[in-house]
Amino acid sequence: MAFKATILSLYPDMFPGPLGHSLSGRALEKGLWELETRQIRDFATDKHRSVDDTPAGGGAGMVLRADVLARAIDAAAPADDPRPKLLMSPRGHPFNQARARELAEGQGAVIVCGRFEGVDQRVIDSRGLEEICIGDYILSGGEIGAMTMLDAVVRLIPGVMGNKESGDTESFETGLLEHPHYTRPADFEGMPIPEVLTSGNHRKIHEWRMAEAERLTRQRRPDLWEAYMADEDDVD
Amino acid sequence: MAFKATILSLYPDMFPGPLGHSLSGRALEKGLWELETRQIRDFATDKHRSVDDTPAGGGAGMVLRADVLARAIDAAAPADDPRPKLLMSPRGHPFNQARARELAEGQGAVIVCGRFEGVDQRVIDSRGLEEICIGDYILSGGEIGAMTMLDAVVRLIPGVMGNKESGDTESFETGLLEHPHYTRPADFEGMPIPEVLTSGNHRKIHEWRMAEAERLTRQRRPDLWEAYMADEDDVD
Repeated sequence: MAFKATILSLYPDMFPGPLGHSLSGRALEKGLWELETRQIRDFATDKHRSVDDTPAGGGAGMVLRADVLARAIDAAAPADDPRPKLLMSPRGHPFNQARARELAEGQGAVIVCGRFEGVDQRVIDSRGLEEICIGDYILSGGEIGAMTMLDAVVRLIPGVMGNKESGDTESFETGLLEHPHYTRPADFEGMPIPEVLTSGNHRKIHEWRMAEAERLTRQRRPDLWEAYMADEDDVD
Repeated sequence: MAFKATILSLYPDMFPGPLGHSLSGRALEKGLWELETRQIRDFATDKHRSVDDTPAGGGAGMVLRADVLARAIDAAAPADDPRPKLLMSPRGHPFNQARARELAEGQGAVIVCGRFEGVDQRVIDSRGLEEICIGDYILSGGEIGAMTMLDAVVRLIPGVMGNKESGDTESFETGLLEHPHYTRPADFEGMPIPEVLTSGNHRKIHEWRMAEAERLTRQRRPDLWEAYMADEDDVD
């Protein structure tokens, strides 16, 4: 069975959006993954089709109702659906490359896109939603977060990337940020390509790239560098 | 002058995409921000309109050429353009809520969307591109990253969010993840709203929310919790 993403959203028309282009778009056309959208509002039952209400205890914004969202989730994913149920949320566990790999190996995901101030906690608890966060910033809703997550996952689905090797030396896969890249022209505004890269000495090229990757990681991401060094120690 | 985003991309048709909907879409219509796209390929000069070439020193994938991209950047942003020039890149500095606020207060941004294996380092150096990263995962290109960043920024532009207060208690703004939310119905599948929230006692509600925010942050994001506690110590 191909990877199937089911999106629950108040803005289903946003999809596929950028996921319909380029790598993920071609993979969608080829049937390497499947995208289904559901309008949460279709599961409202009052005459105004309301999906939200004011927060219990007061405060700004509106909260997505547990009953409406629960109905939408139950309709999208029967009890025996093996796919994880994810809620895009700034309170969630940080999404990263390891989680992308894990999801790409699975059968898909049911993805709830939050809006407003948040989602009633009782639907999170009762439906076992896993809150997931793509970064430490606030978005206007979960839709663009879902697109980001799916873009990272879809490219890892077998058959999607042409050149398999291309994935393995990338940032986050090795624990280090990737080394700098250069290509033709040999001279750009008086700046040459570093000599070692045109030397043909593969050992030296590898050493230079490794040293640059370490330097960049140390400078820019002390958090990744620390984790990388801890892993290296484990190996010794 | 309104906030103006200029996107340099090989897939300009992806835009506005999800940014044309909902909050950012309405703000775009109202002229609260401006979105311009440029096709990098228009700045190629050979007959094949090539924008990339093989990496110097060997390896998988292709690298975006410095000369082509430099021409695209120079055409989009004259030397006196005050906007920061950003390159969406997994090697970049992590984008966060503080950077979103900073950008929302400025005049916009020129955003280069990388593709392929990466971008020739010489154009990053010569054009002063600031590499920026939306999370620790690899995307198929910079476009969805640019949309994510712009969504986070645009909602902070004055006049875009209706209810100003709604932004202030959110995750990342206080240094803590946000407390759980509840709304009607009072009973959802036998689960009541926590009693304190319906007590009408504002002090107790505030205390409960604060305790929940602290508990969630400690459990889910020890990194944020540590930073929050360090800040608290500074205040004492």
